[in-house]
Amino acid sequence: MALLGCGAVGSQVARLFAEQSADLGARIGAPLELAGVAVRRLDRARDADIAADLFTTDAHGLVTRGDIDVVIEVIGGIEPARSFILAALTAGASVVTANKALLAADGATLFEAAAAAQRDIYFEAAVAGAVPIIRPLRESLAGDKVRRVLGIVNGTTNYVLDKMDSSGLGFDEALESAQSLGYAEADPTADVEGFDAAAKAAILASLAFHTRVTVADVHREGISEVTGTDILSAQEMGCVVKLLAICESEERPEGTRVSARVHPAMIPRSHPLASVRGAFNAVFVESDAAGQLMFYGPGAGGAPTASAVLGDLVTVARNRLSNVTGTGESTYAACAVAAMGDSLTRYHVAMEVDDKPGVLASVAEMFAREDISIQTVRQVGRGDEARLVVVTHAAQDSALAATVDALATMASVRAVTSVMRVEGTTE
Amino acid sequence: MALLGCGAVGSQVARLFAEQSADLGARIGAPLELAGVAVRRLDRARDADIAADLFTTDAHGLVTRGDIDVVIEVIGGIEPARSFILAALTAGASVVTANKALLAADGATLFEAAAAAQRDIYFEAAVAGAVPIIRPLRESLAGDKVRRVLGIVNGTTNYVLDKMDSSGLGFDEALESAQSLGYAEADPTADVEGFDAAAKAAILASLAFHTRVTVADVHREGISEVTGTDILSAQEMGCVVKLLAICESEERPEGTRVSARVHPAMIPRSHPLASVRGAFNAVFVESDAAGQLMFYGPGAGGAPTASAVLGDLVTVARNRLSNVTGTGESTYAACAVAAMGDSLTRYHVAMEVDDKPGVLASVAEMFAREDISIQTVRQVGRGDEARLVVVTHAAQDSALAATVDALATMASVRAVTSVMRVEGTTE
Repeated sequence: MALLGCGAVGSQVARLFAEQSADLGARIGAPLELAGVAVRRLDRARDADIAADLFTTDAHGLVTRGDIDVVIEVIGGIEPARSFILAALTAGASVVTANKALLAADGATLFEAAAAAQRDIYFEAAVAGAVPIIRPLRESLAGDKVRRVLGIVNGTTNYVLDKMDSSGLGFDEALESAQSLGYAEADPTADVEGFDAAAKAAILASLAFHTRVTVADVHREGISEVTGTDILSAQEMGCVVKLLAICESEERPEGTRVSARVHPAMIPRSHPLASVRGAFNAVFVESDAAGQLMFYGPGAGGAPTASAVLGDLVTVARNRLSNVTGTGESTYAACAVAAMGDSLTRYHVAMEVDDKPGVLASVAEMFAREDISIQTVRQVGRGDEARLVVVTHAAQDSALAATVDALATMASVRAVTSVMRVEGTTE
Repeated sequence: MALLGCGAVGSQVARLFAEQSADLGARIGAPLELAGVAVRRLDRARDADIAADLFTTDAHGLVTRGDIDVVIEVIGGIEPARSFILAALTAGASVVTANKALLAADGATLFEAAAAAQRDIYFEAAVAGAVPIIRPLRESLAGDKVRRVLGIVNGTTNYVLDKMDSSGLGFDEALESAQSLGYAEADPTADVEGFDAAAKAAILASLAFHTRVTVADVHREGISEVTGTDILSAQEMGCVVKLLAICESEERPEGTRVSARVHPAMIPRSHPLASVRGAFNAVFVESDAAGQLMFYGPGAGGAPTASAVLGDLVTVARNRLSNVTGTGESTYAACAVAAMGDSLTRYHVAMEVDDKPGVLASVAEMFAREDISIQTVRQVGRGDEARLVVVTHAAQDSALAATVDALATMASVRAVTSVMRVEGTTE
């Protein structure tokens, strides 16, 4: 076994592997040995007790040296990780990776290389850290039809939104709190703007719908524009704001269409995802036969991620011993991927309005023009404080967005104060 | 493929199999066909569209006829299910079963027969219905060390306890409500007295600790003696009462000891299991590296259980195609199984006491005699209403039980009104 990368995750993989090698050997059916660790720099202190002569800076040489059965890749990023993985597969090793960015951008290349080499590529750690979600989607639900996946798959943004909800802090202060606790990086863009969640959404949609979905197919909105007003608006509705990775399939006359998107959304406080606090992750799955399932746990961190990596390691090592491969890529369904504008969503729109007769009717008329059905309208306050809060039924996202733009131009609407999609409800 | 049993689960297996046979074939890599359905009586109406000539009353003849690759057993009970499964394995078929009672009573016989025949036996549906928990324990967590499993694995009792908590109903009324909704059977003993949960606890403990644990090893207490006073006592403590299947491992000087037990317990309302409402199931897993995970979903019902069965079907059919077997029984750890009295638990004890100086001291003295450390004592009410509520730290269960017996004999203790173990807390 070779380990590529020895940072937060890699050092925990090495530590747990050393501590449990007897158990792992018993579970695999044969002893497994750490043959080398590729790192960028040899002079760093590592958080694991690894013999100095195992370290090398030559990852390519390590994975191709001929006696490596399994390669664990925890470097991250597209290159050079992709080249190392492809070289490892070609050299006859199976691969365990936590690399969501690479899988979401170019998983197909990896899966095809694995199939050609008759080797495994496993990636439980790529989505929701320690939470087993890849194996359940690939295997446990292989006899069912998944309709929708709603995931809280980014701990940083969940911490920030939870903090805004529970303490009334604004976005900037909540983000600072996350940074001071180590839940957010100095440059929080990948988390806050939804890039990390979008990569995971692509992976989840691919597995759920047996269709290739890449990160380029995922509509992405982050949480940096979520305001205290949005949070209060959600609270008034009995909702909480979460950044969700949403994967859906929809039967259309022309065939099944799937979609994947990441954006903040209001969900009812009674929804199982609403109680996912702090930096935890959870994935909620709706399928025809099983109904509603939820998988919950720590979505990041060295040891939890290493747990998922080592679980995969046991499986691929067992497969190598039997000279078989596990469930490979499943893309037979090859569904069309819908654009965001074409997705069905529900909107919550709060606006400050003139307090005079006919305003509600004229606002309702704007929705009717786009054929959008309104579920509820609440009128709050009087005079200068007069507000309207509209929640729509499901409609085409582009039509909803166009309507909100049109509302903002109405003379009787003084300001649109909160616009957010609503998820996790039955209409 | 042959199906044994065509009741609530079997008919859903047949229905979903027929509806999705193209998808299942694509996921398996080869078409799969329903070759026969064994039932006790041919004249019953079935909830699935199955060709009449597929039915037979000769289950043994069906599984041994020579062309059956996979047998799905959803008859339940020990015999004749065990004989049919053994015959199927010997005849060269892999087996998918939902039979928790058989697995918990005599899983070893089945696993040994499967190993001897080089065939699979899979049983995701045996615990928590559609909720994937067997595969995560067997595979996803194979690289981790599981310390504790807390499961709400019986929907009937969870519905009854939830109803008592939310509506103030007593046990009998809540049970009637469950029966009228179809959540409880006319004879509710198997659910209410914890037999069903005990079978699942044995299966979970075996998988979590790589050790054979049978239902005979499981300490079992049901919920029929849970009173409205217990529920109120729990509410006062910020807790909720749940029937838990608890599997624990503990490092002792003489080696790792494991235990499995089922009893009602108070858990804090902030615990993820506390929000599992109605007839839902959830399994909470604590492991060294992953930390805390939870798996949630419908624990019973024809379609959800069939989802789990069909997921296993895809796996074992794929394995048959590659002529390999999946993860078999793992019992290498062979830990000793602890008796209940020797387990460490925490107790909540509420009692009516005389309102006079020295009573608290004499009660505390009873705990001290058995070397039990008290975490909190609350004195509630005055005069005839005077009560003491004691919560202990973890101690030997037998010592706690002996102390409660001793308390009841004290002159100053008028009645012990509520005794319940406390779980899901950090001390």
